[in-house]
Amino acid sequence: MTDHAETTVRRIMDSAAFRTAHATLAQEHDRTVQDIVTLTQIAAPSFQEETRAAAYLEMAKTHGLTDLEIDAEGNVTGMRRGIGNGPLICVAAHLDTVFPAGTDLTVRREGTKLFAPGVGDDTRGLAVLLAWLRALDAAAIRTRADILFCADVGEEGQGDLRGMRHLFQHGRYKDRISAFITVDSPDMDRIATGGVGSKRYRVTFNAPGGHSYGAFGVVNPMYAMADAIARLSRVTVPMRPKTTFSASVTGGGTSINAIPNSVWTEFDLRSEAPEELDRLEQEFFALIDAAVAVENAARSTRNGGVTTETVKIGDRPARHTDESCELVRLAHAAIAAHGFTPVFEASSTDANIPMSLGIPAIKIGSGGTGGRAHSLEEWIDVEPEVSIRGMTAGLATLLAVAGISE
Amino acid sequence: MTDHAETTVRRIMDSAAFRTAHATLAQEHDRTVQDIVTLTQIAAPSFQEETRAAAYLEMAKTHGLTDLEIDAEGNVTGMRRGIGNGPLICVAAHLDTVFPAGTDLTVRREGTKLFAPGVGDDTRGLAVLLAWLRALDAAAIRTRADILFCADVGEEGQGDLRGMRHLFQHGRYKDRISAFITVDSPDMDRIATGGVGSKRYRVTFNAPGGHSYGAFGVVNPMYAMADAIARLSRVTVPMRPKTTFSASVTGGGTSINAIPNSVWTEFDLRSEAPEELDRLEQEFFALIDAAVAVENAARSTRNGGVTTETVKIGDRPARHTDESCELVRLAHAAIAAHGFTPVFEASSTDANIPMSLGIPAIKIGSGGTGGRAHSLEEWIDVEPEVSIRGMTAGLATLLAVAGISE
Repeated sequence: MTDHAETTVRRIMDSAAFRTAHATLAQEHDRTVQDIVTLTQIAAPSFQEETRAAAYLEMAKTHGLTDLEIDAEGNVTGMRRGIGNGPLICVAAHLDTVFPAGTDLTVRREGTKLFAPGVGDDTRGLAVLLAWLRALDAAAIRTRADILFCADVGEEGQGDLRGMRHLFQHGRYKDRISAFITVDSPDMDRIATGGVGSKRYRVTFNAPGGHSYGAFGVVNPMYAMADAIARLSRVTVPMRPKTTFSASVTGGGTSINAIPNSVWTEFDLRSEAPEELDRLEQEFFALIDAAVAVENAARSTRNGGVTTETVKIGDRPARHTDESCELVRLAHAAIAAHGFTPVFEASSTDANIPMSLGIPAIKIGSGGTGGRAHSLEEWIDVEPEVSIRGMTAGLATLLAVAGISE
Repeated sequence: MTDHAETTVRRIMDSAAFRTAHATLAQEHDRTVQDIVTLTQIAAPSFQEETRAAAYLEMAKTHGLTDLEIDAEGNVTGMRRGIGNGPLICVAAHLDTVFPAGTDLTVRREGTKLFAPGVGDDTRGLAVLLAWLRALDAAAIRTRADILFCADVGEEGQGDLRGMRHLFQHGRYKDRISAFITVDSPDMDRIATGGVGSKRYRVTFNAPGGHSYGAFGVVNPMYAMADAIARLSRVTVPMRPKTTFSASVTGGGTSINAIPNSVWTEFDLRSEAPEELDRLEQEFFALIDAAVAVENAARSTRNGGVTTETVKIGDRPARHTDESCELVRLAHAAIAAHGFTPVFEASSTDANIPMSLGIPAIKIGSGGTGGRAHSLEEWIDVEPEVSIRGMTAGLATLLAVAGISE
């Protein structure tokens, strides 16, 4: 079966202009790799993306964009104008990483593999947007749609999609974007059409504290917290719709010889399905209450018992883009035409925000392979054949959606 | 029954010089309270006692000491010479508190109560040593023994008695001190003759980490740590000999949406009895291993399992001073003669070090009442009658041990 999407993709791929763009991606691959290394080594923890954003703005200046700027939220945005009177589509990669200030970001190269925190999620995506712009310029491609290129802030964790929230809900392009593609992480074989919902909580466990020896026997909030985490670790969640939890960051206490008066942990709850997320959230609240009750019964509360403060630090809607819509069909066709076998999945990315507003939105890969995202051993492979084929598939997706002026 | 100790104490208390000293403690009580407030408000976390030590050195300069100095470890020491050829006894209070830099140390006064972190443990002790010196000077008392006054560092937590270790094992007074009294915390009704032993560990739980959603199902070191803490919370320990444990300080993790690759907790294990401490330590090691094994069985170890690093960060011997020795008998008699009903107990104080060296050593109170040590709600009561009676009892103890030249 050859459907409309496949025909559209085939016509683009057969054009001389696209072949020139593809050749440019291949010729410039070393530069793209260098851009990945340069950007990876500029720290960009969520809420501290300024330095990387400024560097990215400088790099983007030679790339044929108009209206290049850093918006009020910190996103770098620039417009590649189409032939006029077309729709506006947005393609994005995110500036921020999960790694706190002070993390060693030195890129280690082994063969064609690059190891560094954030190298694949999503620094490679940032470099690929620049590679696409150079390829489009070299091939003198004019699109029907205007394309807004965006390197955005706050995709990770507590950033809570603040960059996208601003772009779609407050900034100058509010209400104008009709389709959205985020280029996030290497894998071309997965197209995210579902936005994984998440709820994040920082739970602080408070108690009177006291001397570890002299006050032994009074409640210790660390025991209540540990019991809550241990209970969470034993919760069963469905494989489909995929539902997950994590106890991620913790801290508290004052001294080795003091029963702490305050300890806290940050928790991440996610699901493809809103109802599963709600169910998990209720179970989470209940197990915290149970753990606190156990500690308050196990030890003395003569100076006061363990109490909790639960603060919501993230709330992302679980929505999806219909897999039969044109955006998804074009992306699938373009990526499959380059030898990949894309499957649809749900994930938590910048696409969640347009999805939540009913705007067609997907996440595609940035090309190549990689792994261990969010760990200090994060890596990508920049082996040219697979990398360039992936980038070309992504560019074909963008052009199929934006349309080429012929 | 009137024993030698009671006779000695009675003779001192009946002397005109002692009555003058007592009157001076009473007259100068407001100044002593002001000294407590001043010193409390100078931060002195263990290992950061320099500022308070320098202030204390200045305050001590007008107090008739010779050889006043800050030693190589940071202890403030000064000698009050006796009549010559007598023994050397040391009286100490500790400079450091358990509260980290940045803790609000403002003293809040309600009636005769002072509230502030560290106010009773052991800032009051520091001020009482100065009050005693003024009283001895005002009464022109000469002692048989030389008395080394010491405001020492590193009594708390990870300080691990470093001030005392230096004084008794390395400093200029090494091998010269024949009896030791530390003045630590208000309560006059308890004389510590036993040194509680402690073992302290920082246990780090490492694992590969990963994306909280994408890598869901791989081992989370926080779950192993939480399970270990929860298991510890359920350990049974004897009331006598008193044996305690605490999970005190914790931290780790990088981001809300990352399974952590490293988390840690600091644990405090104590007992009056070395064999109970050893038993608790073995149980502690075993429960950590069990918790790690459970997590490595519960989730995927495809990138590696949870491993632990256990670092000993404190090790204090459990020893005691014989209750029939002259030091203990004199202290008991002097304190009882002032209307208190002292009982013997074990605790973990500066006295542990001389005890471990076979030098008679005790802890006595600094007078008055107090509570909630090692918590942010720590308080003392400086109501004059009880406070002055307590300080006088302490001074009588010191003079009974040092002997008055008549």
